[in-house]
Amino acid sequence: MSKLRFALLGLVIAGTALPAIAQDRALLGSIKARQGQMQIISKNMGILGGMAKGEIAYDATAAARAASDLAAIGSLNQAVLWAEGSDSTSMSGNAAEAEIWDDWAGFDAKWQDFAMATAAAATTAGDGKEALGPIMGQIGRTCGACHDDYRTPR
Amino acid sequence: MSKLRFALLGLVIAGTALPAIAQDRALLGSIKARQGQMQIISKNMGILGGMAKGEIAYDATAAARAASDLAAIGSLNQAVLWAEGSDSTSMSGNAAEAEIWDDWAGFDAKWQDFAMATAAAATTAGDGKEALGPIMGQIGRTCGACHDDYRTPR
Repeated sequence: MSKLRFALLGLVIAGTALPAIAQDRALLGSIKARQGQMQIISKNMGILGGMAKGEIAYDATAAARAASDLAAIGSLNQAVLWAEGSDSTSMSGNAAEAEIWDDWAGFDAKWQDFAMATAAAATTAGDGKEALGPIMGQIGRTCGACHDDYRTPR
Repeated sequence: MSKLRFALLGLVIAGTALPAIAQDRALLGSIKARQGQMQIISKNMGILGGMAKGEIAYDATAAARAASDLAAIGSLNQAVLWAEGSDSTSMSGNAAEAEIWDDWAGFDAKWQDFAMATAAAATTAGDGKEALGPIMGQIGRTCGACHDDYRTPR
């Protein structure tokens, strides 16, 4: 191979690889963003669940805060966090069914169910420990409904 | 070593290792949660920055939405997401200075600066493309101020 050809080949590889690396970073960021929001949900559900079970002393302010943080996550525009091409078939380390992008409206409707359940919880979680069981059930059902359809089986 | 001693040793290891694994999972979840929120911030700042630079067409609704999503992240109770023991000295894969936990009030004050800047941005990002430059500057300064003090140098 001549030096010129070698240099040209290098340019071609660099020209295709560099945008691919930037694209990959964006997709990895997307996975990290949405897995992070699931962890934020998990941490705050853990507080409400711990109080419901009596493992943590019930505290109206802390319960209301955890529920309103869940609602804050529920309010986020999910379109920004689920980049096309970051499904579990295309990229390892995540469990997002490719169907999410084939059926975005269906997926987003399920997210809105979570948003509504958490917004409701934010207004009632401070009402007393007894409120937390039903709240956990209502929110948990919206989590499960979405995972059933759009998360790969473990 | 007798069988009894071996069995007892096994119990001791299991007894110390199992809580340690649960603790580790909680700490890893904490890192994932806060790195995820940084990615959510990054994605939404990317939208505002792209519009400010003219790389993305300015859209008042989309700009206001991105800013209000930043404010939603700003509103989150950070105490839930920064578990003690998940600093960069104790665990790899993260850049949180141990000082965060020695100076929680100082750290949280810097987060509140971000919360205030993003809440203000949520009310002005829809006012026109010209609003975005100052918004990016105001929010960006709060990011930088916190990173300077509480993130390990790259």
